[in-house]
Amino acid sequence: MKLATLNDGTRDGQLAVVARDLKTAHLADGIAPTLQAALDDWAFIAPQLDALYQLLNQGRGQRSFDFDAANCMAPLPRACQWVAGAAYPNHVELACKAANIAAPESLRSEPPMRQGGGDFRGPHEAIALAYEQWGIDFEAGLAAITDDVAMGATPDQAHLHVKLLALVNDVTLRNLVADELAAGGGLLQAKPGASCAPVVLTPDELGDAWKGGKVHLPLRVHWNGKLVGQPHAGVDMLFNFPQLLARLCRTRPVRAGSVVGAGVVSNKDARRGYCCIAEKRYLEVLADGVASTPFMLFGDTVKVEMLGEDGKSLFGAIEQTLKQAEARKGG
Amino acid sequence: MKLATLNDGTRDGQLAVVARDLKTAHLADGIAPTLQAALDDWAFIAPQLDALYQLLNQGRGQRSFDFDAANCMAPLPRACQWVAGAAYPNHVELACKAANIAAPESLRSEPPMRQGGGDFRGPHEAIALAYEQWGIDFEAGLAAITDDVAMGATPDQAHLHVKLLALVNDVTLRNLVADELAAGGGLLQAKPGASCAPVVLTPDELGDAWKGGKVHLPLRVHWNGKLVGQPHAGVDMLFNFPQLLARLCRTRPVRAGSVVGAGVVSNKDARRGYCCIAEKRYLEVLADGVASTPFMLFGDTVKVEMLGEDGKSLFGAIEQTLKQAEARKGG
Repeated sequence: MKLATLNDGTRDGQLAVVARDLKTAHLADGIAPTLQAALDDWAFIAPQLDALYQLLNQGRGQRSFDFDAANCMAPLPRACQWVAGAAYPNHVELACKAANIAAPESLRSEPPMRQGGGDFRGPHEAIALAYEQWGIDFEAGLAAITDDVAMGATPDQAHLHVKLLALVNDVTLRNLVADELAAGGGLLQAKPGASCAPVVLTPDELGDAWKGGKVHLPLRVHWNGKLVGQPHAGVDMLFNFPQLLARLCRTRPVRAGSVVGAGVVSNKDARRGYCCIAEKRYLEVLADGVASTPFMLFGDTVKVEMLGEDGKSLFGAIEQTLKQAEARKGG
Repeated sequence: MKLATLNDGTRDGQLAVVARDLKTAHLADGIAPTLQAALDDWAFIAPQLDALYQLLNQGRGQRSFDFDAANCMAPLPRACQWVAGAAYPNHVELACKAANIAAPESLRSEPPMRQGGGDFRGPHEAIALAYEQWGIDFEAGLAAITDDVAMGATPDQAHLHVKLLALVNDVTLRNLVADELAAGGGLLQAKPGASCAPVVLTPDELGDAWKGGKVHLPLRVHWNGKLVGQPHAGVDMLFNFPQLLARLCRTRPVRAGSVVGAGVVSNKDARRGYCCIAEKRYLEVLADGVASTPFMLFGDTVKVEMLGEDGKSLFGAIEQTLKQAEARKGG
């Protein structure tokens, strides 16, 4: 099943079911007003959404219309919890190697996890920031959306609560990272907010590509129209989604609509390219002693997408332009 | 104006206006269904809520009823953003002194700020955790709730967006902190979730005690019925709420319903007592070389409250019992 949230002028948008081929959609207004409402009562609501999804795929939706990703908000515009894990240790290991420091000892036993703001940007929303000098970087990755998960759930138990999968671009301001880490509060200003692809899907949509709590498909990133990365999301993922989720709920119950990211996808095989500019720069430092690729410049575009075995887009694409934020005029 | 969220069986509860003396309340159902909805459209909604508040205080509410804090959820049960700053450097400085390490250099120029899960516990909800050995500690403090704040807002601009004030108990699992800091992802498992006092209020309710973006009143903490702390929230607060909020929105717009905490209240004058057990233990380490006060034990109670100049409770009280979480039985 595929779902999206349409922009209807409200802050939480309107839930719609989207056909498998992303060509048509149907409002879910008779079933649940928002994706959050659906997740709040998933066991009851999901079968109804799925019935509508089947009709839609058969061309039998009574009020179906052309699906337009440009009219989508983030699937869950206001999540009450957004946690990003670092499930691909290659990313951190490269960073540490380039900085000539030791990687954290726990990196391969306990994934670092970071909480962020749950207000997600839409798939076509501009990335608006004030200064290129902040070192503006994209970070393409996957995330799981949960229903309620009890405190202390094991990975096997948590597995059952991965209800939906999403694509995210979790922008990082690289040049703000070091100071924030030194201050000891974790990253805040360096993580100005993540964007989501228009469509979320139930794991069964991936068929055999959803296996062992991982998505076994490449994640494709275009930067200014050029394919710069297609690392495989199932390769080098040391912690799967159920493990990340179990780690989160070790000391708390996790509420419906929580979003748990796996961090930027990163393969050891550098020929797969990169899902964030920083990795390209780490490799340059290691090869040449200096990073030559600049971070994003105003006007740059980034596109994040995942294709199924049939070559068709699974989640629709995140397509964003970096623009300079207007100077503040008050209030 | 004072507001609360009543438990009506839904996850976001029902907005109510509460009389100044906390004795009566009135549903706001004709005005806004939830506190989030009110914040989403604050300029339009707040005057209507205030009109009802005036009637209620005059004993003229048409459907007023006895206010019962036991029937309250957190005022904002699912915030899309919860950020806790460390505005009272004395707390971190004591911790570092007791550990015989240097405090972060930036502590007095840039407050550490940490993002957390926005799912707040109710004022009387038990603190349910699995192991006393985690070092379970309360952390009593204040928080500001905002409407929309533009990216790049200055402290003066941000000041206007402090729409409501709240009391929080932001529980910390002290014995999980060191490993999480070492792993580099910031605190996650060590911060299992914060609770809120039943009532939030507009800053004008504090009269002269709201000055310079700070609350100039003592915060009172009872542990197992004994008053253990009444540090003054306006003293030793190095960063005020507008400064914390401006720091948060340096690289992002802040959306309505964001909650910005100032961290555990802490005075240099140790005779004021403590708002978290850790501080008592730091002082013991500094005096005796060893901490003798244990952290919370199952069955312990904690009460957090702030009284006005007239000795009456402003926000109602957080009153929680620490209980052992049941063993997981599956799912």
